[in-house]
Amino acid sequence: MNKKINVTIWNEFYHERTRESVKKIYPDGIHGALRDKLSEFGEYNLTVLTQDMEEHGLTDEVLANTDVLIWWGHAKHHEVADSVVEKVKARVLDGMGFIALHSAHASKIFKSLMGTSCRVKWRENDEKERLWVIEPSHPIVKNVPEYIEIEEEETYGERFEIPTPDELIFVSWFKGGEVFRSGCTFKRGLGKIFYFRPGHEEYPIYYRDDIIRVIKNAIDWACPDGITKPTLGHVEPLEVVKDKFEGKSMEERTHANLGK
Amino acid sequence: MNKKINVTIWNEFYHERTRESVKKIYPDGIHGALRDKLSEFGEYNLTVLTQDMEEHGLTDEVLANTDVLIWWGHAKHHEVADSVVEKVKARVLDGMGFIALHSAHASKIFKSLMGTSCRVKWRENDEKERLWVIEPSHPIVKNVPEYIEIEEEETYGERFEIPTPDELIFVSWFKGGEVFRSGCTFKRGLGKIFYFRPGHEEYPIYYRDDIIRVIKNAIDWACPDGITKPTLGHVEPLEVVKDKFEGKSMEERTHANLGK
Amino acid sequence: MNKKINVTIWNEFYHERTRESVKKIYPDGIHGALRDKLSEFGEYNLTVLTQDMEEHGLTDEVLANTDVLIWWGHAKHHEVADSVVEKVKARVLDGMGFIALHSAHASKIFKSLMGTSCRVKWRENDEKERLWVIEPSHPIVKNVPEYIEIEEEETYGERFEIPTPDELIFVSWFKGGEVFRSGCTFKRGLGKIFYFRPGHEEYPIYYRDDIIRVIKNAIDWACPDGITKPTLGHVEPLEVVKDKFEGKSMEERTHANLGK
Amino acid sequence: MNKKINVTIWNEFYHERTRESVKKIYPDGIHGALRDKLSEFGEYNLTVLTQDMEEHGLTDEVLANTDVLIWWGHAKHHEVADSVVEKVKARVLDGMGFIALHSAHASKIFKSLMGTSCRVKWRENDEKERLWVIEPSHPIVKNVPEYIEIEEEETYGERFEIPTPDELIFVSWFKGGEVFRSGCTFKRGLGKIFYFRPGHEEYPIYYRDDIIRVIKNAIDWACPDGITKPTLGHVEPLEVVKDKFEGKSMEERTHANLGK
Repeated sequence: MNKKINVTIWNEFYHERTRESVKKIYPDGIHGALRDKLSEFGEYNLTVLTQDMEEHGLTDEVLANTDVLIWWGHAKHHEVADSVVEKVKARVLDGMGFIALHSAHASKIFKSLMGTSCRVKWRENDEKERLWVIEPSHPIVKNVPEYIEIEEEETYGERFEIPTPDELIFVSWFKGGEVFRSGCTFKRGLGKIFYFRPGHEEYPIYYRDDIIRVIKNAIDWACPDGITKPTLGHVEPLEVVKDKFEGKSMEERTHANLGK
Repeated sequence: MNKKINVTIWNEFYHERTRESVKKIYPDGIHGALRDKLSEFGEYNLTVLTQDMEEHGLTDEVLANTDVLIWWGHAKHHEVADSVVEKVKARVLDGMGFIALHSAHASKIFKSLMGTSCRVKWRENDEKERLWVIEPSHPIVKNVPEYIEIEEEETYGERFEIPTPDELIFVSWFKGGEVFRSGCTFKRGLGKIFYFRPGHEEYPIYYRDDIIRVIKNAIDWACPDGITKPTLGHVEPLEVVKDKFEGKSMEERTHANLGK
Repeated sequence: MNKKINVTIWNEFYHERTRESVKKIYPDGIHGALRDKLSEFGEYNLTVLTQDMEEHGLTDEVLANTDVLIWWGHAKHHEVADSVVEKVKARVLDGMGFIALHSAHASKIFKSLMGTSCRVKWRENDEKERLWVIEPSHPIVKNVPEYIEIEEEETYGERFEIPTPDELIFVSWFKGGEVFRSGCTFKRGLGKIFYFRPGHEEYPIYYRDDIIRVIKNAIDWACPDGITKPTLGHVEPLEVVKDKFEGKSMEERTHANLGK
Repeated sequence: MNKKINVTIWNEFYHERTRESVKKIYPDGIHGALRDKLSEFGEYNLTVLTQDMEEHGLTDEVLANTDVLIWWGHAKHHEVADSVVEKVKARVLDGMGFIALHSAHASKIFKSLMGTSCRVKWRENDEKERLWVIEPSHPIVKNVPEYIEIEEEETYGERFEIPTPDELIFVSWFKGGEVFRSGCTFKRGLGKIFYFRPGHEEYPIYYRDDIIRVIKNAIDWACPDGITKPTLGHVEPLEVVKDKFEGKSMEERTHANLGK
C-alpha cells in the first residue's frame, strides 16, 4: 500500500470543554492530541470529527472515505443518533477498520458490533496500570516493549463482558487487585476491530509515544487492503448436480430423508 | 443437575400453515415435531411458543423460567417486535442458552447477538448435504457419527458472515460445490449459543434421530449451571493502594505519566 | 454417565520427601492430598502414581483404564522416560483427559502436547495471587466465585509461552506486578487438556475447597464421553465422481490445472 | 520493512527424481518452481534447499538468516534427522515464519509444532478441489478471489487431527464428498505458521498464480517484524510487595492459605 491511509478520529469532546482539569491536559481535545501525535508518522490523512457536528460529522462521504475510524466517547454515548450508529456499523461490516479507545467500550457502536453489554468493573483511583503483551509477534505490538506502565489511570476490572476476542494482545494489571483484557481484536463482517483500554481523560495518556505506537500499529493492521467481497444471497450451483431423487415426488423424498 | 431442564421451543409457524407441502411434513408445526422428538428423552420440561402469540409468547415469566430457548424462523423475522428481541437478548446475556436453527441465522435476535449481518449464499435445489464433525470430543457431538448425511436440503454457502465462532463443530459439504460452517458455538455474556444449520421446512429433517441427537446435546451443553454472576460497575480496590503520587498535584502526575 | 470416572493422579513426589517444609505440608505427598480431597465427592475411582514407580506407574493397562490423568512435577521433569511420555501423549490424542498442575507447565508431556517451550517468568516471594474468572459460564468454574484469592504463592508471569488457548478461564493477578493466564483449555487429538496454575509445593494449596472444586470440575469436563473416532488414512469417495478429465492424458490435465 | 525478506524453500526432492510423471511437471523440482514463481515479485532473497544436502541444508547459519521457511515433504519425512527438526523448531519459537505445504502436514517438524498426529483422510483420485475463503479480510487472502478452483488434486478429508487453528482461512470442498480445513494459521512461541493444503506432486499446482499469491501473502504475514522478546525465567518483583504475612511463620501462613 503506497497511498496514505485515511484515518478519521472521532471524539465526544465533552469533558475537555466542561472540566478544568481535562481542559488543561487536552486543550485541543483528545482528538487534537491524537491527530498531532499520529501526524508525526507522515503516513496518514487525518480527519477529526466531534459529536456536536451535524450527523456527528459522520456523513456518508466521510465514512466512504475512511479506512480506519478511531472512537473516543464516555459521558454522551446515549446522545449518539441510532441512525449514525447503523451507518458506522454498515461501514465496519463493509471493511472499514475500527479502533475503540478506553470508555468507547460502552459506546452504542461498539456494543452493537460485539452483541453484548461490554460492561466492566471500574473506579477512578489514580492506580498504576501495567499492560502486559500476550502475543509478542502480533503486528499491533511491533516495536512495543514487553509491558507498558502507566503511573496513574482509571481502573477497569474483569469480567469484561465481551465475546471471546479473536486475539488477546494485552492484559492489564492494576495496583488495586484487578486484571483486564486491555487489548483485544475482533473481526466483524469484513472489518477489523481493536479495543485498546488506556486513555482516561484525567491523565495525559495520548501524548505518550508507547501508547501512540500501539494505536499507529492498530491503524496499519486494521486498514482494509485487497479484500475480495464475497458473493451473498441466491447463487446457482457450481457443479452439475444430479441427485438420485431428481424427478421423485415429495413423498419419495420424504421417505429418504427420514432414513436415519 | 438432577432437575429437568426447561426448554422453550419457539417457532415462526408460518410455512406450515400456508404451504401445502410443508403442512404435510409438519402437520403440528416444526415446534410440534421438535417437542415430540425431544420429549422421548424424558429429561426436559418442554414449552412450545409461536410467533402469533401475544408478545410472541415470550413473556417475562416464560423467559425467566427458560433454561434453553430454541428458535426457528424464516419469512417473518421482520415482524418480531424489537422489544421482545431486547428481552430475549437480555436473558441470553444473563445465562439462558440459545439454539438458532437453520434460517434463524437471519433472525433479529441472532444478528443482534452476533453483531453482524449473518448473511449467506443459498439456493433451494434439493442437494445433498453432508455435515462433517470437526471437533469429535465436543459434548455437542456426543454419540454422533463422524458425518451426518442428508439426501436433500436447502444449500447454504460461505462466506457465512458471522464473527469467528468460539468453536467450529460441523462443516457442511454440498453437492453443488459449497461448504458451510454448519455447527458453531458462541458465548455472549453468560449465555451459550449454538447455531445448527439443517432444517429447511420442505424436508422432514427434524424427525431424524441424528439431528435430534445434536439438538439434545446442544441443550445439555447450553443449559446454565452453577454460574457465578460477576460484579459489574463501580468497585472499591481489593488491595491497599499507596501510589507514589498520592498527594501530588496534577502537574506532577502529568509529568510522570508523560514519562515514556 | 452413571459409572464412576477413573482418575489417575501422578506426582513427582520429590520435594515432599526431601524438604522438611514441604513434608510438613504434604505428609502423604501432593498426590495423597489430591486423592483425599477428591475422594470426598464419591464420584471417582482414584489411583495414585509416583515417578519412582516402574515405568513411573504409567503401564499400558493403567493408561488404558484412565479417563483423566492429573500431573504434578517440578524438579525431575528431565528424568521422566521419553517412552512413557510418548505413551501418555498417544492416550491423550486417543481421548484421555489431561490436567497439568502448576509446574507441570514445564513437563515433557505438556510441552510435547503444546508444541512450545511453555516457559514463564517466575519467583518465589510469598506473593498474593488472585485468580479472576474470565469465562463465568464455563463448566470448569461451576460454583466457583468470581475470583480465588491465595495469600501466598509462587509467582508466574507472562509471557507464558503456550499456543493460544482454546479457552481462557482464569487470569491471575500477582502482587508483585505480573499477570498470568492461569487457567487454560486446549484440545489435542480427541483429548481435552486443562492447565491450572496454583499449587507450589511450599503452600497448602491443594487442601483448599475452591481449588479442589476447580480440579473436580476440570475432571468432569475433560472426561471422554461418547466420542466417535474419525476414520483416518486412505478412504474411498463417498460420491460418484465423474470428473471432466476422466480418461484425459497428463498433458491435457496439466493444461487445465494451469488455468488460473 | 524496506529490506528484502529472506525466504528459504526446503524440498524433499524425491518424487521429482524418481517418478517420470512428476519429473515432467517439475523438471527443476517443486523448490525450483516455487523459487521461480516467487522471484517474479522481486521482494525476496530466495534460497532453495533439498533433503539430500548435508544437514538437509539447514545449517545454523541458514536458519539464523531465514525469515520465513517453506517446507514440502512427503515420502521421506522419517529420514529427516531429529536434531535438525529440533533446530528448526527452536528457530520457529524464536520468531521465524513457517509455511507447511500439502503433505508437510505429516512432517516431523509440523507435528512437533502442533503437538498432534496431524493425520487426515486421503485418496488420489483426480478430484476437483475448491478452496473457499472463510476470512476475506485476512492478509493471507489479499487480492485472492472468493474461491480457488483446482480441477484435479489429491483429496484430503476431515477430521484433520490438528489443534484448533488460531485462524481458519480456507475450507476446501472435494468432489468426492469431503471437506478440509485447507488454510490454517497457528502461532508457536514467537513464530507464525501457515498450513496450506494444495500441491500434490502429480499436478502442476505451484505454477498457478492464485496459489502463488496465497504463498506470497503468507510469507509477508509470517515474516517476523519488530518483535520484542519477552524476558523469561527468574525475575524480581516490579512492585514493592508488603504482604500481610511478612515475618509470619509457616504455620500462620498455612492457616491463612487454608482459609477458603
